[in-house]
Amino acid sequence: MNFLEERITKDGIVKEGNVLKVDSFLNHQMDVALLDQLGQAFYERFKDKGITKILTIEASGIAIACSAARYFGVPVVFAKKSKSINIDGDMYVAEVESFTHKNKNNVIVSKKFLRPGDRVLIIDDFLANGCALQGLISITESACASVEGIGIAIEKGFQHGGRVIRNLGYDLYSAAIVEEMNAENGTIVFREQN
Amino acid sequence: MNFLEERITKDGIVKEGNVLKVDSFLNHQMDVALLDQLGQAFYERFKDKGITKILTIEASGIAIACSAARYFGVPVVFAKKSKSINIDGDMYVAEVESFTHKNKNNVIVSKKFLRPGDRVLIIDDFLANGCALQGLISITESACASVEGIGIAIEKGFQHGGRVIRNLGYDLYSAAIVEEMNAENGTIVFREQN
Repeated sequence: MNFLEERITKDGIVKEGNVLKVDSFLNHQMDVALLDQLGQAFYERFKDKGITKILTIEASGIAIACSAARYFGVPVVFAKKSKSINIDGDMYVAEVESFTHKNKNNVIVSKKFLRPGDRVLIIDDFLANGCALQGLISITESACASVEGIGIAIEKGFQHGGRVIRNLGYDLYSAAIVEEMNAENGTIVFREQN
Repeated sequence: MNFLEERITKDGIVKEGNVLKVDSFLNHQMDVALLDQLGQAFYERFKDKGITKILTIEASGIAIACSAARYFGVPVVFAKKSKSINIDGDMYVAEVESFTHKNKNNVIVSKKFLRPGDRVLIIDDFLANGCALQGLISITESACASVEGIGIAIEKGFQHGGRVIRNLGYDLYSAAIVEEMNAENGTIVFREQN
């Protein structure tokens, strides 16, 4: 097991309804040393891709994206989930459905911060059905920028999001892929990865 | 001028309605080297306070809080703005009004992650009328934890939030305090600080 699989095994909590709670170290309370390990893992995986920008989505993706950005030496842009009066008119928009919150949001990125020719690494904390990720890919391609890689902390391998993204030819790396989990006895099985 | 005042002067944009846009380096696109400088400044200011936890609020506070947490070697907890099905019942709640979005949110922190005796450093990107900050203080005190310090990136000194918090006796440090700004000519005047 790698560092993240070990931490999920130790501190993750499986709940009914395919919910994996990692709020003690990843998406409510955050262990910054673990975030650094994740950032370094994404750097090792994508360092040869000429990344010019890291794109993520608020809120839980931000900390991981910033950890990775320190290794890459590039800016982070985070997509916002609702139109703010502080955002200028000129922006890319995608509609994203949330598995967790059971609602739809417009996700927006200012056109100033994603440019034609940008080589983008997309980072997020979770990949399940892939709606958020599809929105970020759509926004990147709207900008005539290229998705050079996708780094996810935890993929739910039993949902279809990761398979679809890989089938589309994107270079997707998930630090941990949960193959099965059982709310009754709390067990979590990870997919073997190279 | 310090590093942040210089950056605001260079890249900040003043808009009508007392809006200061810093979305090219702080709260949409993020310059991680600048975040590190902010984290270090907060560490220098509060390193003798025995901080055990950093508390912030999604989304823009997260990156700054994580930068600071690397210096302090403590976890970050970020307050969430709406009830998620992934959050257990046992949580602290405060109602917060948003200046930017003109709405009210419940802000919640799981009771698991803020404990009696915790010595808390609260961090956020902006302080204007202080509603978000008051919510975070209220949550900290609900937990019988102590607010040992408050670190803000940019305070709008012409609004009342900072004065109220200082009058209440909290140790508030803002890396940059905007005393006046002018949307017509784009000038920004900062408060002199020691």
